[in-house]
Amino acid sequence: MRGRAPLPLSFYTPCSFNRFRMAHTLDAPGLAPFLPLLYVAWADGELTQPELDAFRDAIHRHSELDQGTLAALDDWLDPASPPDAADLEFLLERIHADREHYLAGNERVEDVAAALGMSYGETVRELLGETRPAPPHTFTGGDAALLQALLDGPEAATRQRMRAVLSRPQFAHRAGLTTAQHRQLVFDWIREVAREGFGSLGLPRELGGGGDVAGFLAGFETLGTHDASLAVKFGVQFGLFGGSIQLLGTERHHRYLKAAATLELPGCFAMSELGHGSNVRDIRTEARFDPATDEFIVHTPDDDARKDWIGNAAVHGRMATVFAQLYTGDTCHGVHALLVPLRGPAGEPLPGVRIADCGEKMGLNGVDNGKIWFDHVRVPRENLLNRYGDVARDGSYTSPIASPSARFFTMLGTLVGGRISVAKFALSAAKTGLTVAVRYSAVRRQFGPTGAAERPILEYQTHQRRLIPAIATTYVADLALKALTDRYLGSPGPEEQREIESDAAGLKAWVTWHVTRTLQDCRECCGGQGFLVVNRIGQLKSDSDIYTTFEGDNTVLMQLVAKGLLTEYRQQFGSMRLGGVIRYVARSARRRLSTLNPVIVRNTDEDHLRDPDEQEKLLRYRRDRLLGSVARRLKRRLDNGTDPFDAFRECQDHLLALGRAQVEVLMAREARAALARAPEGVQPLLRDLVDLHVLSCLERDAGWFQAAGAMEGNKAKAIRELVLRLAEELTEDAISLVQGFGIPDAILGAPIATGAPSTS
Amino acid sequence: MRGRAPLPLSFYTPCSFNRFRMAHTLDAPGLAPFLPLLYVAWADGELTQPELDAFRDAIHRHSELDQGTLAALDDWLDPASPPDAADLEFLLERIHADREHYLAGNERVEDVAAALGMSYGETVRELLGETRPAPPHTFTGGDAALLQALLDGPEAATRQRMRAVLSRPQFAHRAGLTTAQHRQLVFDWIREVAREGFGSLGLPRELGGGGDVAGFLAGFETLGTHDASLAVKFGVQFGLFGGSIQLLGTERHHRYLKAAATLELPGCFAMSELGHGSNVRDIRTEARFDPATDEFIVHTPDDDARKDWIGNAAVHGRMATVFAQLYTGDTCHGVHALLVPLRGPAGEPLPGVRIADCGEKMGLNGVDNGKIWFDHVRVPRENLLNRYGDVARDGSYTSPIASPSARFFTMLGTLVGGRISVAKFALSAAKTGLTVAVRYSAVRRQFGPTGAAERPILEYQTHQRRLIPAIATTYVADLALKALTDRYLGSPGPEEQREIESDAAGLKAWVTWHVTRTLQDCRECCGGQGFLVVNRIGQLKSDSDIYTTFEGDNTVLMQLVAKGLLTEYRQQFGSMRLGGVIRYVARSARRRLSTLNPVIVRNTDEDHLRDPDEQEKLLRYRRDRLLGSVARRLKRRLDNGTDPFDAFRECQDHLLALGRAQVEVLMAREARAALARAPEGVQPLLRDLVDLHVLSCLERDAGWFQAAGAMEGNKAKAIRELVLRLAEELTEDAISLVQGFGIPDAILGAPIATGAPSTS
Repeated sequence: MRGRAPLPLSFYTPCSFNRFRMAHTLDAPGLAPFLPLLYVAWADGELTQPELDAFRDAIHRHSELDQGTLAALDDWLDPASPPDAADLEFLLERIHADREHYLAGNERVEDVAAALGMSYGETVRELLGETRPAPPHTFTGGDAALLQALLDGPEAATRQRMRAVLSRPQFAHRAGLTTAQHRQLVFDWIREVAREGFGSLGLPRELGGGGDVAGFLAGFETLGTHDASLAVKFGVQFGLFGGSIQLLGTERHHRYLKAAATLELPGCFAMSELGHGSNVRDIRTEARFDPATDEFIVHTPDDDARKDWIGNAAVHGRMATVFAQLYTGDTCHGVHALLVPLRGPAGEPLPGVRIADCGEKMGLNGVDNGKIWFDHVRVPRENLLNRYGDVARDGSYTSPIASPSARFFTMLGTLVGGRISVAKFALSAAKTGLTVAVRYSAVRRQFGPTGAAERPILEYQTHQRRLIPAIATTYVADLALKALTDRYLGSPGPEEQREIESDAAGLKAWVTWHVTRTLQDCRECCGGQGFLVVNRIGQLKSDSDIYTTFEGDNTVLMQLVAKGLLTEYRQQFGSMRLGGVIRYVARSARRRLSTLNPVIVRNTDEDHLRDPDEQEKLLRYRRDRLLGSVARRLKRRLDNGTDPFDAFRECQDHLLALGRAQVEVLMAREARAALARAPEGVQPLLRDLVDLHVLSCLERDAGWFQAAGAMEGNKAKAIRELVLRLAEELTEDAISLVQGFGIPDAILGAPIATGAPSTS
Repeated sequence: MRGRAPLPLSFYTPCSFNRFRMAHTLDAPGLAPFLPLLYVAWADGELTQPELDAFRDAIHRHSELDQGTLAALDDWLDPASPPDAADLEFLLERIHADREHYLAGNERVEDVAAALGMSYGETVRELLGETRPAPPHTFTGGDAALLQALLDGPEAATRQRMRAVLSRPQFAHRAGLTTAQHRQLVFDWIREVAREGFGSLGLPRELGGGGDVAGFLAGFETLGTHDASLAVKFGVQFGLFGGSIQLLGTERHHRYLKAAATLELPGCFAMSELGHGSNVRDIRTEARFDPATDEFIVHTPDDDARKDWIGNAAVHGRMATVFAQLYTGDTCHGVHALLVPLRGPAGEPLPGVRIADCGEKMGLNGVDNGKIWFDHVRVPRENLLNRYGDVARDGSYTSPIASPSARFFTMLGTLVGGRISVAKFALSAAKTGLTVAVRYSAVRRQFGPTGAAERPILEYQTHQRRLIPAIATTYVADLALKALTDRYLGSPGPEEQREIESDAAGLKAWVTWHVTRTLQDCRECCGGQGFLVVNRIGQLKSDSDIYTTFEGDNTVLMQLVAKGLLTEYRQQFGSMRLGGVIRYVARSARRRLSTLNPVIVRNTDEDHLRDPDEQEKLLRYRRDRLLGSVARRLKRRLDNGTDPFDAFRECQDHLLALGRAQVEVLMAREARAALARAPEGVQPLLRDLVDLHVLSCLERDAGWFQAAGAMEGNKAKAIRELVLRLAEELTEDAISLVQGFGIPDAILGAPIATGAPSTS
C-alpha cells in the first residue's frame, strides 16, 4: 500500500538476460518448493539486503539441497541481477499450474519461510487466492416494521399521510433552480401541505382547526425528512406566526388564526434584530402608545435595531408578529409583541415599512429571509398581543405578571413548542442522511481479501464506527423527544413547564449538534457520491447547518440548562439567593460525591457495563460532580469580588459540559423508560441501541470520567471495545434499522449509483 | 435567563390595591434599607415560599426594627398580595433616587441579606449598575507583520503577487449564478491566473516555464484563501494534467506541457472510476495494444468502469491522462496512463468518447466534473506515458521496475505533490474562515454585565475555546506543511521519498479534517451571519467539504500511515516479512514501554507541561504504544488463522488512532524546528501557539493517555486548564494572529454587518 521512489539504476537490467537465466535454472532439482518464496520475496519490491541475506543463510543451512539447487537459488537472490517483470509473471504461472501440489504444503521449507517471518502455508494460500476470509455480513437482521411502529407511535397514520403527500411528484427536488424559483417551489409545497389540512391540524376545533396538536407536530417533524426549507417555512407560518397569535394574543386576535392556518395570510415572526439575536431582552425596536389616536407607533430607531433574518419577510409575508419595547409615556414595560401588517394585497410593502432581502445563504434558500425597518408605523392599540400585558384606552399599563423578568420569560416560554419542533425536524434530516448512507455502504464495495470479491464498505470497522452509533443515538434522541413532547402536550403545571423549557433547550442543542455531526459523517462515508445534490446528504447538511444557532444558539442554550440546574437547587432548598445556592452546592456536592466504590470503577464485565442502573449512576455522577465543581468555581470568583457576569463567563466551558451531562442523563432515562414500555419483539434490538448510545457517551467523555476517578483505564478500554463490538453486531441489522425511520423511497431521491461489484 | 409558566391566579391581584399599600407603608421608619432586598426578592419572579419565610425570620430576629416597620415588611412579603409591576418600578425609582446613600452600604441589614444567600453591597451595586466588570480585551496585541513574514516565507513576493491578482474586481464573488455561469466565471479566473504566468511557473525553464516549483506551489496555496473551485480547477489543469504528462511521460509528451500550462490545452486527469475510487489498482478501463495498427484501444468495459468525478471533463477538457489496465495480447501489465484526446476544436466529444455531467454538488460547483466512457477509442502507441512502462513496436512490454507492485506505487508516488497541495489550499480556506470569524467576534457584542455595555463575543470563553486553538493549529499545520514541501522539493532519495509520501498522506488527512471542523466552528461562531454567502464562511465550508474524501479518502490515508509505520520496522531490522515484523513489534513495544516515571505522569507544573521534550515524549509514547498494541492485536488474529484482510479490517479503529498519533508527532516536531529558526521577535507568540496546539492534542486524547497510564487525572485537568488559559491570553492577540494569515480585504468579502453596540 505504500508508494515507491524510482529504483536505483542497478535495477534496470535488460529483460533478455533474465529470461535466459530463468530457462537455465528453473528446473534445478529441489527448486520448485522455493518458487512461492522467491516470488513473494521480489514481487512487492520491498526486499531489503538483510532480508536477502537471511533468505540465503536459511537456504544454506538447509541440509537437503544439492549444489545445483543452491547455485540456482543464489543466482535468484542476487541483488545485482534481480528478476524482471516477465520473470515474475512466469514464476507465478508456474505456481498456478501446479496449485494442488503447492497447496498441499511442504514441511521442508517451513524453516526457510520462518526465517523471513512468513508461514509457507499462508504464503501459498494467499498467492493462490485460497485464504478463507470471514463470511460477509447480510445487514438484513431485525424487524423494520416493529422499529417503525415504535418510532411512528400513536401518530403513525398522520405520518403516513404526510409521507404520501411528500411522495407526490410535485415534491421532487429539482437541481439548478434560481433562488426565486426555489422559494416559489417551497411556497407551492407549503400551500399543498396546508391544503391537506396540516397547517390547521393543531388549532382548537372551536377556531376551525383539527384539535390535534400531537398530529400537527408529527406532520411538522415528518417534513424534516424531506426538505429543511419546507420544514422551516412551515414552522415560521404555522408554528411561530400562528402560534404567537394563539398563545400571546387573546380572543380579539384569534380571528386571524384560520387565515394563518390556511396560508391565506402569510405571516412573519419578527423577533431577532441585527444587533440582538440571543439577547432578546435588549432588542431596540419601539412600540410607543399614542393616546391621541389610540394607536401604537412602531419604530426602528437605527439600523442596529432592524428586524433581521425574518423568515417569510423577503417575499411572502403579509403581516408580522413584531417584538418591541413597549412604552407608555416615558415608561418602558419591556418586550411585548404586536401584529403589524407588512404588505398590501399586491404584495407591495405598506407605508413606513421597508423590507430588504437577506440574500443567498449557505443553505435553506427556499426560505425568503428578510430585514424589516419600521418608520413610525401606526397600528391600532388592539393589535397588541395582550395576554401577558395590556394598555388601556387611558394609557395605563397592566399585566397579570408583576415581575418584569417573569413576564418576559413567560412570553418566551410560549415558544417552547417551536424549540421542541426544531429538534424533531432536525433529527428527521439525520434519519434521511443515515438511510442514504447505510443503503449506499451496504452495496458499495471497495478493496477485499486477496483473490476474493471486494467487500461492502459497511463491513469496515471505520464505517461501522461512524454510522451505527449515530443510528443508535438517533433512536434514543427520537424517544427522548417523544417523551418531552408528551410532557409538553400534557398540560404541565408551572414547575413542570419550567423543566420542559430547560429540557427543550438542552435537547434542541444536543440533538442539532448530533445532526450536524451525523450528516458530516454520512457525507464522508459516501465519498464523492455524498457530495452530489441528487443524493440528498449534501443539501441536508448545508440546509440544516443553521439549526445549531437558530431558535436559540446551542452554546447559549446549554448554559441555560446549566444555570437551570443551579437555580433548581433553590426550588429544592429555598431560603437562599443564587450566591448562597452556589455556596451550598459547592459544599454539598463535595460531601455527597466523596465515596466511590473502588470495585465499580474498574469493573469491566459486560453485564456490568450494560447494567442500566450502573450506566445511570455514572451519568448522574458526572452531572452532579460537574454541578458541584462549577459551583465551587463560581463561588471562588464571587468571593473574590468578581462581577457575576465575568464569573459565569470564566466558567462557560464548565457550564457547557454540565449542560451536556444533564441532557445525557435525560436522554438515557427517557430511552430506558421507552424500552420498558416497548413491545417485546423490539426489546432486544432496542436494548442494544440504547446501550450503544449510552456507552458512546461514556466513551466520548472517558477522559473526564478517569480524571474524576469514576473510571479506571481498564474500564475505559472495555467500554471502547464494547462500543466497537455492539456497532459490529448491529451492522447485521443496519438496513432494518434505517428502514425503521420510515423514509419513503421518493424522499431518498435517485438511488446512488454504486459501482456494482465486478466479478473479475 | 429561565422561562416561566403562567403564574397561579392568586398572583393576579388588581394594581390599585398595591399602590394604595405602597403609599401607606413606604415611609415607615427603618424600611428604606430593606428596599433593595425587597426589590430583588420579587423582581425576578423566582421567590419561593421557604425564601419568603427565611426573609421574614431574619427580619424578626432584627432587634432594631419597630413594630410599624415590621408590619410594613410583613405586608410586603405576603405572598397573598405580592407587589405588581408598577410597585416594583416605583421601588426601583426610589432606590435610584437615593443611590449614593444605598451605595454607602448598611451593616445593619447584612445579616438579613446573608440569610438569603446575598451580600447587601453586591446586591445594591448590581441593582444600580455599579459593579466593576473585568476590563475589556483589546485583541490587538502581537506583531501581525512578523507573523505574516513567517508564514509567507521565501515565497512572500509570489504570494503577494497572487493576492494582488485575486483582489482585482473581476475576482469578486457573485451570488445567484447558474452552474453554467459559475463554471465560466471560474474558467475566466483560471485564464487570468494563467495569463499572469502562475500555471507555468513550476515548469523547467527548458520547457518554457519559470523553473520555480516553490513559487508555483505558493501561488496554488494562495488560491485556496479565495475560492475552492478556483484552486481545484487550477490543480486539475496544472497539477494533475500537466504534472502527469511531466512526471509519467517522457520527452515525446513534454511538447504538450506549454499548452497545458497556458490553458491552450485544457485537460483532465481521468483516474477514478464509478466502481473504483480508493482502490485504484483495480480500475477496469482497458488499453489494449493492437500491433496491426500500432495503436492502443482504450475501452470502458461496462458502466462500473466509467471514469467518474473527472474535473474539467463536463465542459472544458480537450485531452485527458487516462489510467487503464495495459494489455499486450492477453497479458495485463497493470495500471498505466495514456493521453487520450476528448474533444475537437469546437468542443464536441470525439468519436467513441461519451461525456456526461456529474451534476450539481453540495459545493465546488465552479468545477465541471464529468463522467467519461470510451468505446474502443484508438490512440497512437506513443500516447502511452512511458516513463515507468513501455510497449515496443513489436508488442513487447518493458519496464525499468520489475515488481508490478513497486511500479504501481512509483507511478502513484509521482502524485504526492498534489496531495501536499490539497492540504495547503485546504488550510488556506480555514485561514479565511478564521479571519472572518475573529474579526466579526471582536466587534459583535451580545449580553454583558448588568448596567454596562454589552461585551464582544470574542470575550466569551466558549468562543475563545473554539477559535483560538484552531488558529494555533492552523499555524502549526502551516509550518509542518512548509517543512514537508521543502523536503519534497529537495530531491529526496528513495527512502526519504517513501517517508514524504507517508507524511503527505497523513498531513493531508489530518489537516483537511481540521479544516472541516474549523470552518464548522467559524460558521457557528458567526451565527446567522456565518450562514450568508456574502460572508464567505458558508461557501468555504460547503466547497471544502469534499477535501476529506478526495485525493485519497482520509480514512484510507490514515491507515496507510499506520501500515507505513509497521513496514518501516522492516527497513530498520530487515530479515522479516510483515507477519514477522508484526510479531517483533508486538514483543519489542511491550518491552520498551514498560517503564513510565510515576512522577512525570502526575506532574502539573506549567513549566513541565510546556516543556517541548516532555510534550514530545508523550506524543511519541502514544505513537509507539499504539504501534505495539495494534501489532499485538494483528498478531493474535494472524496466529488464529484470520485472513490478513480481515485482521486489518478488525483493527481499523486502532490503525486510525495510530495514524493520527504519528501525524501529531510529526506536526509538533516540525513546529518546534520552525520555532527554533524563527526570528526572535515572533518567538514568544509562536511558542504560545505551538504549546496551545500540542496541549489541545493531548487534551483531546486525555482519555487514552490516562487509560494508558501516561497521565494521571490531575495532569489531564491541568492540561485542560492551561488550554483555556492560553486561549484566553492569546485572545489579546487575536486580530494580529489572523492578520498574519495575510488575507486581503477584497478576499474577505463584504465586512459583516455587526450590529454595532448601542450606547443605551
